[in-house]
Amino acid sequence: MLYVIGIGPGSQATMTMEALDAINDAEVIVGYKTYTHLVKALTVGKEVIKTGMCKEIERCLAAIELAQTGKKVALISSGDAGIYGMAGLILELVTKQNLDVEVRLIPGMTASISAASLLGAPLMHDFCHISLSDLLTPWEVIEKRIIAAAQADFVICFYNPRSRGRADHLERAFELMKPFKAAATPVGVVKSASRKKQEKWITTLGDMDFEPVDMTSLVIVGNQSTYEQNGLMITPRGYEV
Amino acid sequence: MLYVIGIGPGSQATMTMEALDAINDAEVIVGYKTYTHLVKALTVGKEVIKTGMCKEIERCLAAIELAQTGKKVALISSGDAGIYGMAGLILELVTKQNLDVEVRLIPGMTASISAASLLGAPLMHDFCHISLSDLLTPWEVIEKRIIAAAQADFVICFYNPRSRGRADHLERAFELMKPFKAAATPVGVVKSASRKKQEKWITTLGDMDFEPVDMTSLVIVGNQSTYEQNGLMITPRGYEV
Repeated sequence: MLYVIGIGPGSQATMTMEALDAINDAEVIVGYKTYTHLVKALTVGKEVIKTGMCKEIERCLAAIELAQTGKKVALISSGDAGIYGMAGLILELVTKQNLDVEVRLIPGMTASISAASLLGAPLMHDFCHISLSDLLTPWEVIEKRIIAAAQADFVICFYNPRSRGRADHLERAFELMKPFKAAATPVGVVKSASRKKQEKWITTLGDMDFEPVDMTSLVIVGNQSTYEQNGLMITPRGYEV
Repeated sequence: MLYVIGIGPGSQATMTMEALDAINDAEVIVGYKTYTHLVKALTVGKEVIKTGMCKEIERCLAAIELAQTGKKVALISSGDAGIYGMAGLILELVTKQNLDVEVRLIPGMTASISAASLLGAPLMHDFCHISLSDLLTPWEVIEKRIIAAAQADFVICFYNPRSRGRADHLERAFELMKPFKAAATPVGVVKSASRKKQEKWITTLGDMDFEPVDMTSLVIVGNQSTYEQNGLMITPRGYEV
């Protein structure tokens, strides 16, 4: 049995019951070391296989092979395994290579939902997720999506907004949005949502400081109705209040 | 204290620990009757205030007033309260009317994540949420977003896809996507995700049957790389497998 588990953004409080049950049931835990560390308290006495970054295919194949020996294996992703996580790769490997293994997907809370609840209620209207990592997606495709989303006044959640190797992607994304979104549009940033080092702040499209944003950050850009009040970022749903 | 809680799509298994803790802590539960029914097992001995549909402002004001009397109140939404739920309206009322009440937002798993995990892994690449309800949003704005999202090859999740009063919205949305998405694009439908009456199926943009889709349904339309295999809907992340 191979459980593919989204453990939520960080704290155990944001994990679902079924994710907890699946981790408890598993004999072996496989995951990127930051994630295995997040569930450390739940994995005492279990075999834990920590892997480095950028080893996704190896990590998935190792988990599948272990499960094929009859062990109950939990492959963990932070957030939801089905959103920029490991669920897709596992199913691609299983279907394309016709591998014989029972897979159970356990969804988790993705970073945007957790970040939104910490900022206020910025996702109350239509929104989209865009990853700014061009490791697996051509930058032109990403640009096209940013422009389309800004033009149609979506609230936009940026995943993987900024790393050392991609220090200017977020700034380029903001330049692309500026013809369509006002400089006063609220922008919320949450770093390490629901983890010990959690930080958050609200700024605007025009005043954005890119420097403090890193790969543990989630950036939410409002739509034309989004406002900030009392330190809260709110996108009205459209009720007359 | 006013907890604004997303209880997840339906079953207790998809609820987070902190949502469970907040419901346990609350003395009064307020919510649309379908949702109070979903958490029935957790609210034995508590005061439960069930409200009808389309009474959102009254429901929120009642919850705020109750919390102002010193009671611990839980206002519940299905999925996540911050995504087409009650969190935004509560914060709008509190900030605009300058009401004195302590609000704690407890995020939950939104329907798209749960539906995706039941279909396979359709949300592995950039995606957006679009609600097809025009009760609070002009249809022209919705149309513009559908076209923009289809043009930029987003995976699209349709919320509130079809009701008796809006029987043709989903079909109109599909017509708008057809110039940009191939007829063979996989489409996944999940009805009543993680509830007793759960149903799901995978079809294509060209073969879509709109009739069985209702307000408890979530419709996910793939991007140009999404495929169906072994009954699973998969959007590749871009790894070479």
